[in-house]
Amino acid sequence: MTYDSSNVFAKILRGELPCHRVYEDERTLAFMDIMPRAAGHVLVIPKAPARNLLDVSPEDLAATMATVQRVAHAVKAAMDADGLTIQQFNESAGGQVVFHLHFHVIPRHDGISMRPHTGAMAPQDGLAALATRIAAHLS
Amino acid sequence: MTYDSSNVFAKILRGELPCHRVYEDERTLAFMDIMPRAAGHVLVIPKAPARNLLDVSPEDLAATMATVQRVAHAVKAAMDADGLTIQQFNESAGGQVVFHLHFHVIPRHDGISMRPHTGAMAPQDGLAALATRIAAHLS
Repeated sequence: MTYDSSNVFAKILRGELPCHRVYEDERTLAFMDIMPRAAGHVLVIPKAPARNLLDVSPEDLAATMATVQRVAHAVKAAMDADGLTIQQFNESAGGQVVFHLHFHVIPRHDGISMRPHTGAMAPQDGLAALATRIAAHLS
Repeated sequence: MTYDSSNVFAKILRGELPCHRVYEDERTLAFMDIMPRAAGHVLVIPKAPARNLLDVSPEDLAATMATVQRVAHAVKAAMDADGLTIQQFNESAGGQVVFHLHFHVIPRHDGISMRPHTGAMAPQDGLAALATRIAAHLS
């Protein structure tokens, strides 16, 4: 499988589509999932082209996970979460919809299930406020 | 939250409990999940004590992910999978049951859902055969 640079995350990285940015460094970007499974659901991606876990370079994978960890702490604090679920999908059979590697960081609260993946978009102003709140908790 | 060394993965690492080993290196261990969500479901853990994503060292996290990637390729090939789902749970609210950091590597096939997490154990001889088959595909 090869990388197709017309995917929406590639467009975000090129500035062709907007995102609600939480964190960015040389190798990685974190932004709000617009179809959140829970309030505060963030995606973390490498900037370098990678279809998924199977073709990402070890260096980009390590950098991406360092950002996942950093963002996880901030999401947990910002959302006063009891826990976090991390998911990463590879190929359609694995649940992948956008074919640029991404890790889901989903805050969880005791006794509350994740919302089903319905495709419903969250209001933009709410996402912007959450991005600001989570970014404020980055150490 | 602190690390409790009485968890079952710590016991596996100390040799006090058996496992069906797929791969091992200086920093990481991969072995068959005994309650698989799909045939070929492997767990990858760091050898160093870490409760979950929130307290693992960056070096151990990077090493663990390098093994996740390596094992993912082997699982996909061995199980002739169409895709893979990676999951990692933090604290009870996030779905964590064993409190030593672990990543789930679950092979997926088009049109087939993951089994629910029932707590049913797979037969030991089947797990041993799968571990051997997956290990043979490690490059």
